[in-house]
Amino acid sequence: MAFHGTDANGPESEQARYRAALTTATSAYLDSQRHLLRTISPDTHTLIDTVETLTRGGKKLRPLLCYWGWRGAGGPADSPEIVAAGVALELFQAAALIHDDIIDRSATRRGAPSVHEQFGSLHARSGWHLNADRFGISAAILAGDLCLSLSEEQFASIGPKAAHGTAGRGIFNRMRTEVMAGQYLDLLEEAVGPGQSPEAAAARAHNILRYKSAKYSTEHPLCLGGALAGAGKDQLAAYSEFSLPLGEAFQLRDDILGVFGDPAVTGKPAGDDLREGKRTVLVARALETGSSADRKVINRALGNDQLNPGDVERLRGIITATGALEFTESLILQLSQSAFDTLDRLEVDSTCRTALALLATSAVTRSS
Amino acid sequence: MAFHGTDANGPESEQARYRAALTTATSAYLDSQRHLLRTISPDTHTLIDTVETLTRGGKKLRPLLCYWGWRGAGGPADSPEIVAAGVALELFQAAALIHDDIIDRSATRRGAPSVHEQFGSLHARSGWHLNADRFGISAAILAGDLCLSLSEEQFASIGPKAAHGTAGRGIFNRMRTEVMAGQYLDLLEEAVGPGQSPEAAAARAHNILRYKSAKYSTEHPLCLGGALAGAGKDQLAAYSEFSLPLGEAFQLRDDILGVFGDPAVTGKPAGDDLREGKRTVLVARALETGSSADRKVINRALGNDQLNPGDVERLRGIITATGALEFTESLILQLSQSAFDTLDRLEVDSTCRTALALLATSAVTRSS
Repeated sequence: MAFHGTDANGPESEQARYRAALTTATSAYLDSQRHLLRTISPDTHTLIDTVETLTRGGKKLRPLLCYWGWRGAGGPADSPEIVAAGVALELFQAAALIHDDIIDRSATRRGAPSVHEQFGSLHARSGWHLNADRFGISAAILAGDLCLSLSEEQFASIGPKAAHGTAGRGIFNRMRTEVMAGQYLDLLEEAVGPGQSPEAAAARAHNILRYKSAKYSTEHPLCLGGALAGAGKDQLAAYSEFSLPLGEAFQLRDDILGVFGDPAVTGKPAGDDLREGKRTVLVARALETGSSADRKVINRALGNDQLNPGDVERLRGIITATGALEFTESLILQLSQSAFDTLDRLEVDSTCRTALALLATSAVTRSS
Repeated sequence: MAFHGTDANGPESEQARYRAALTTATSAYLDSQRHLLRTISPDTHTLIDTVETLTRGGKKLRPLLCYWGWRGAGGPADSPEIVAAGVALELFQAAALIHDDIIDRSATRRGAPSVHEQFGSLHARSGWHLNADRFGISAAILAGDLCLSLSEEQFASIGPKAAHGTAGRGIFNRMRTEVMAGQYLDLLEEAVGPGQSPEAAAARAHNILRYKSAKYSTEHPLCLGGALAGAGKDQLAAYSEFSLPLGEAFQLRDDILGVFGDPAVTGKPAGDDLREGKRTVLVARALETGSSADRKVINRALGNDQLNPGDVERLRGIITATGALEFTESLILQLSQSAFDTLDRLEVDSTCRTALALLATSAVTRSS
C-alpha cells in the first residue's frame, strides 16, 4: 500500500480543506443554476434557494466517507473530481430529504422548516390564491426533482472516471435505486406490518434499514470514492465489510433518536418516528418481545399524528421495559465492534484510518 | 448534405423499426431493473410495474423527434445509442407525468388510473393500515424519483456521445431544469395570477408553455438527436427554428383539449385544466378580452375541483364568446405555418423531411 501524503496534525486539517472545497463548489454550482433559472423567469430562484438552505446544514458524512475512500485508494488530495462526487452525494441527499419530508409530513428538518413548509409559508405570507399546503407540497416535489437532476449533472461532471460502465457509475446508480426501493419498503411496512407476524418484524425492519439507509449512508459513499480512485475488488470488498455494519449501527442510532432524542439537539419533534408510524428495528423488537397488551398500545399509536407528549412517554416506557432499547443498543455496539475490527485491518494509511475511525465514532455515538 | 439511406415506402417502415426497438429496449431495461429490485425484496417490483404501464402508452413524440433529428444529421438508422436516448426521454416523460399527476391531483392518465391512484387502490384493495390516498401519493413520489434516476442511467449509457461537456449532455441537462422551472412557474401562476393584471396574463402564460412544454416536447428532443449525431451549430439552430413554434402550437392544442376535449378521446375528464386552475394562454386571453363579469366567473371557477359539467359548459361559452378560442386557434395556425416554412428549408433528406412533417401535423391537429 502506497503512502499518500502526510498531515502532521492528523486528518483534521486535510478534511477541513475538503469540506471547504465542497462548500465552495456547491455554492458556485447552485449560483450558476440560479443564474440559468433567472433566464427563464426571475421568480424561479426560490427552487434553488430552498435546496441551498438544506445543503448548508448536515454532517456531510457521505462526502467525507467518499473522500477518505478515494484517499485510501490512492486518489490525490486536491482533485476537482472528488469534490464533484461529494457535491453529487450531498445534492442526492438533499433531494431524498425534500421528498422524504413530504412523505413523512415532517414540518422541520435540520432545525429549520422543511422545504414544503417553506413553500407553504411563502404562499400563506404572500396571501396567494388556492391552498397554501398544497402549493407547498407541489413546489417541494419539483424542488426535489430539480435537486435530483442537479445531483446527476454533478456526478456526470466527474468525467471519464464516472462514465457509463465504470465501477463508480455502477455504485451511484445502484445507490439511487436501492434508496428508493428501501423507502418504498418502509412505506409498505407502515401499511402492511401491523397485519403480519410480529416474530419476523425485526428481520423485515433490518432489511429496510439496510437498503433505505445503511448502504446509502456509508457503504456506497466509501466504495464510490474508492472506485473513482481505481480501487480493486478486494479493497472495495474490505470497504464494504467495514462500512455496512457501520451504516447499520448509524441507522439504529437514528432510530433510537427518533423515539428518545432530545428535540433541542435533533431539530425534530420528540417521538417523531412514532407519529410517522416507522416500524424500525427498535419498535419491531418491542412488538416481538412485548405482551399482547403492549402490542395493542404500540400498533394503535404508530402513525397517529395526534400523539401527545404523554403518549410518547408511555411508548418510550414500553420500548424500554420490553428490553427493545437495550437490545438495539447492544446491536449497535456489536455492529460498531465489527466495523472497527475491519477498520484495523483495512489497507489504508494511518491518516485515512484515523479519519475513518473519527467518522465512524461520530456516526454511532451522535445525539443529533 | 449527405444522403442517409432510403426507404421505398417513405419514413413509415423505418420509423416502425425504431418504435419496435424502443419498445424492446424499454421492456428489457425495466425487466433488468425489476430483477435488481427483487434482490432487495420481492415486494418492490410494483414500482417498476407502474412505470412500465405508463411507458406502454403515449404517442412517443419525443423519441421519434429525437430519432429524426439524429437521422437528419447523419446518424445511422440502426444504432443502440439513439434507442437509449429515446428510452431516456420516455422515462423522463414518465417521471414528469407521475409527479405532475400528484401535483394536479389527476386521477387518470392515458385513459388508465394515474400512478398514485394505482398505489392508492392497491392499498384500499388489500385492506392495509393507515391512509390509502397518502400511501398512493407517497409511493408515487418514490416511483417518479426512481423513474427519473432510470432515465438518467439510460442517458449515461449512450456513452461518449453523451459524456460531460458534449452538446447532447448539455441539452439533456437543460431540458430537465427547464421543465421543472416551467412547472414551478405554472404553479406560481395558479397561485399568484388572479391578483395580477389580466393584460399581461397571456404573455406570462406563453412563457410558461414555452418552458414547461414546448421546448421539452419538441425542440430539445429534436436537437438532442441532432447533437448526438454531431450536428453543427447552424443545423441545431435550424432545428430550433422549426421545432420551437411547433412545440408551442402542440401545447396550445393541448390547452384547447384541456377545456374542449372529448373525455372518450383524451382519456381525461372534461374541462380538467379548469378544475386544476391552469392559467393557459387560452384562459389568459379570455381574461384579457372578457368583461369584468366574465373575469369574475373565470377567476372563481379556476382551481375549483367541484366544478360540474354545467360550470364547464358555461366557461366554454365564455372562452368562445370572448374570442379566446379563435385567437388560440389562429395562433396555432400561425406557429404551425412558421414551423412548416422552416421545415421546407431544413437541410435534411426527403425521408427525414417527410417524417418530420408527419409528426408535426399530428402534433398540432391531434384530438388526444
